[in-house]
Amino acid sequence: MLVPDALKDQVVLLTGGGTGLGKSMARYFLSLGAKLLISSRKMDVLERAAAELREQTGGEVLPLSCDIRDTGQVEQMFETGRQHYGNIDVVVNNAAANFISPTERLSANAFHTILDIVLKGTANVTLAAGKDWIEKKQAGVFLNILTTYAFTGSAYVVPSAAAKAGVLAMTRSLAVEWASYGIRSNAIAPGPFPTEGAWERLLPGEFAAQFDPARRVPLGRVGEHQELANLAAYLISPYASYVNGEIITIDGGEWLQGAGQFNGLKAVSNSVWDDMEKKRKNR
Amino acid sequence: MLVPDALKDQVVLLTGGGTGLGKSMARYFLSLGAKLLISSRKMDVLERAAAELREQTGGEVLPLSCDIRDTGQVEQMFETGRQHYGNIDVVVNNAAANFISPTERLSANAFHTILDIVLKGTANVTLAAGKDWIEKKQAGVFLNILTTYAFTGSAYVVPSAAAKAGVLAMTRSLAVEWASYGIRSNAIAPGPFPTEGAWERLLPGEFAAQFDPARRVPLGRVGEHQELANLAAYLISPYASYVNGEIITIDGGEWLQGAGQFNGLKAVSNSVWDDMEKKRKNR
Amino acid sequence: MLVPDALKDQVVLLTGGGTGLGKSMARYFLSLGAKLLISSRKMDVLERAAAELREQTGGEVLPLSCDIRDTGQVEQMFETGRQHYGNIDVVVNNAAANFISPTERLSANAFHTILDIVLKGTANVTLAAGKDWIEKKQAGVFLNILTTYAFTGSAYVVPSAAAKAGVLAMTRSLAVEWASYGIRSNAIAPGPFPTEGAWERLLPGEFAAQFDPARRVPLGRVGEHQELANLAAYLISPYASYVNGEIITIDGGEWLQGAGQFNGLKAVSNSVWDDMEKKRKNR
Amino acid sequence: MLVPDALKDQVVLLTGGGTGLGKSMARYFLSLGAKLLISSRKMDVLERAAAELREQTGGEVLPLSCDIRDTGQVEQMFETGRQHYGNIDVVVNNAAANFISPTERLSANAFHTILDIVLKGTANVTLAAGKDWIEKKQAGVFLNILTTYAFTGSAYVVPSAAAKAGVLAMTRSLAVEWASYGIRSNAIAPGPFPTEGAWERLLPGEFAAQFDPARRVPLGRVGEHQELANLAAYLISPYASYVNGEIITIDGGEWLQGAGQFNGLKAVSNSVWDDMEKKRKNR
Repeated sequence: MLVPDALKDQVVLLTGGGTGLGKSMARYFLSLGAKLLISSRKMDVLERAAAELREQTGGEVLPLSCDIRDTGQVEQMFETGRQHYGNIDVVVNNAAANFISPTERLSANAFHTILDIVLKGTANVTLAAGKDWIEKKQAGVFLNILTTYAFTGSAYVVPSAAAKAGVLAMTRSLAVEWASYGIRSNAIAPGPFPTEGAWERLLPGEFAAQFDPARRVPLGRVGEHQELANLAAYLISPYASYVNGEIITIDGGEWLQGAGQFNGLKAVSNSVWDDMEKKRKNR
Repeated sequence: MLVPDALKDQVVLLTGGGTGLGKSMARYFLSLGAKLLISSRKMDVLERAAAELREQTGGEVLPLSCDIRDTGQVEQMFETGRQHYGNIDVVVNNAAANFISPTERLSANAFHTILDIVLKGTANVTLAAGKDWIEKKQAGVFLNILTTYAFTGSAYVVPSAAAKAGVLAMTRSLAVEWASYGIRSNAIAPGPFPTEGAWERLLPGEFAAQFDPARRVPLGRVGEHQELANLAAYLISPYASYVNGEIITIDGGEWLQGAGQFNGLKAVSNSVWDDMEKKRKNR
Repeated sequence: MLVPDALKDQVVLLTGGGTGLGKSMARYFLSLGAKLLISSRKMDVLERAAAELREQTGGEVLPLSCDIRDTGQVEQMFETGRQHYGNIDVVVNNAAANFISPTERLSANAFHTILDIVLKGTANVTLAAGKDWIEKKQAGVFLNILTTYAFTGSAYVVPSAAAKAGVLAMTRSLAVEWASYGIRSNAIAPGPFPTEGAWERLLPGEFAAQFDPARRVPLGRVGEHQELANLAAYLISPYASYVNGEIITIDGGEWLQGAGQFNGLKAVSNSVWDDMEKKRKNR
Repeated sequence: MLVPDALKDQVVLLTGGGTGLGKSMARYFLSLGAKLLISSRKMDVLERAAAELREQTGGEVLPLSCDIRDTGQVEQMFETGRQHYGNIDVVVNNAAANFISPTERLSANAFHTILDIVLKGTANVTLAAGKDWIEKKQAGVFLNILTTYAFTGSAYVVPSAAAKAGVLAMTRSLAVEWASYGIRSNAIAPGPFPTEGAWERLLPGEFAAQFDPARRVPLGRVGEHQELANLAAYLISPYASYVNGEIITIDGGEWLQGAGQFNGLKAVSNSVWDDMEKKRKNR
């Protein structure tokens, strides 16, 4: 989508970069000239992803193991990244964790685990990057990957909803507070972008099939990873330099379809509409 | 709910006051000591409603025919109201109109009709009241009755959604602009509060039964008119004097149920959750 | 505002109930017939508040020390409360903590402390209450006290904004998920309701005077505690039984005044408006 | 920003296309390979703009006079456009009108005029395009240009706020209703993108200087037309094919800066923060 070299020589740190949407974004950023630092807790997965990404794009990828809940590991990740690349220009907070479960079945500990990874982890990475950019009087860009239920809420994923909503508020807050340092902050709220295996890990097989996310989407289909990568690349690029503090939903209209009171009338047949139209015109 | 005399001697102008939710609000306001001016285009309906309300509450009700699209009639309504009561303290913009139809089946004229009644009509009433209050340096209260699809949008009721959204923005705008004149502006966004006959007028019989609004509501039921009247009475009363510029949704959680991505998992059985819980704990 | 006995025999657990808005809500709930359990980390403050509240209202108040970050203490609080009252009907999550500081001056630890108290603490209390209500097939009501920057975000209070936003999403999520168990969940987003001492603790004296919150409010004044107590009492009462999943802002229009693009034109004088009006009419 | 030919052979109908942001968008769409139909009420302005655009880009531009309030003229515009280009692929609803005035100084007629141009006009264009696309089973794209006060409201531009909010709801509604016909609907809410002359036309000279919009923006500057054109081009391009029903704000964070409760603390000096930090750490 973007002109070649749109991200030329930009160094992008991407958490949760070894799989799924993270890897898809990484691939597209690389193809636009960016240099990548990808992190997650699983070094073997990261290394395989890095090798694959290098092969596909010819770009530079540095994989770094990091549990973002641990501020020491986060500091170390930035330190290594800076030593390697000299500088980090963009941070994409994409790492996440989730339990799908009735909330009353969750222990307080399980609830805390999700809050720690998603919200504290993102705060840790954000503080480390921001403090460094501010100290060095250097511009920077944050892009946080949320979900639509960060603002609508959702049953059965409550710790994740709470944590992502926290990141949403952080995005809006820092967009104002840190803008005078040349730091932009935005977020994406993706709808259904299935990743091979992820859905099946969350829901048992027979149920995953039954609960077809495409049916919830006005456009009648789930998203393709490249569609999300397009939006992400735009937002971290200089072409979006006046977009700040914004949460962009990319879900084919999913949340709206459920929210709007009369959207269910899609089930009404044309002949019923014909009758109603006659009635209306005769009033 | 409120203490008796909570609205003692308040003069309330209520458009669309002869039927449905309007009449229910009127009844409760009267029982709290308010004096009412109710208007609509149908004088016979209004007169019957006024008689019924007087009998039920012993309160004072002035019915006035008014097509709120016509600024002359709106001026006349205020003039008559002021002559009768000396003063008007509260305006409840409740009059509405709607077509349920696929948008491409609507003529531009039909679309305009809804915009004219709901948005222009409300603007006409609001301008007439506000100009008078400001000129007389008198405090006042606006309460606008919207719908949840004023902010979510909704298919098949697009002119109404557009018009109600316009009233929503007017509410927020004037809450700021006219506050220094002592004028508060708020709105209510009701979910499903069926009125005898209304639903059936909008949808053909067999379909009305099939499209059960209670199923869309987490609380599992539609609203009762008194529940909306409680909220409306609170908002126009001095007890809500610091609530300004707010749109309060009263829908049992309806719009959220549709919006949240995983809310559909309510259909998952306990035994499936049991399996998933085991799986999660063994990870 | 409400009829006497509107909360007759309702047992309300209120965290952060020893000071400020918490104490004001407690007082009003007691005067409407509720029985109170108030908690905070400071037992001496709580005991004094309990004695004062009993004296003022003649109601029943049980003060309980609890650090809501500690799930053991939370369980103990509920256990003691149930032994004393037999039952808890309403939970008001009001406990909070905040640092006013540029975000880059906060350590990760300081950031985590706020998240732990406000978000994890609220989650702990909510889980404990909800699991018990669901197990006993008993209805219940949650009311969470937020801030307007839970949805707008705000500089200089970023950990609090993130945590409160998390509670907001939890409110909306559980409003859907737990509604079928008869549990309602709502929240209040208050604007400026100063508490003696609190503002001065947050901002140094000379600055507190300079940064007058009333100027940010269209109504030209800060809120009175009773105004918030009115709204809270309504929301936990049965009169609000169809309000579910809603966040009600009570801020005099504060956030809107800042947000709207042309609201600053309030500074334009009447003679300039006169000139512009002439110009407009001559176009 | 986008690859050359990103809009190759797309026929774009752009209302309000002869000046300001409309002309800037037109220029960029042309440079990406689109063919343009621009309309407004002033044929002489349009013709000059078309000549200028052709010269700058070498692209094809058809200027058509149209008062979008008049459904007959709207039909004629589409008819002429289809005869010339065979087809219209994208509609950008950009035409607008505004009065900056205290609301109580506006006649009902003045209020109606803005509603008619902005909301009815947009509805007329949208109906004409949508009906044709649906009848011909042809995909299409809507992009509506709003303002941030479409959702926040704003004093002194109330008719415009109401009308733009109506278009916002229309965007979300049709994003759901017409998605199954392959029609996407999105909107942009721009902050301050000054157009030579426009600001001065709205505000008298001395005041325009005093009310500097850049000060309201965290990024410290107003937007450049190309930044808005970038976002618009992305949204109408196939690269945004999963973005549907979304309102994207591009304002540098303007509305958030005003909205967030503590954003005004930007005025606090570093030495005061130093003192507060010491105090906090000693607690």
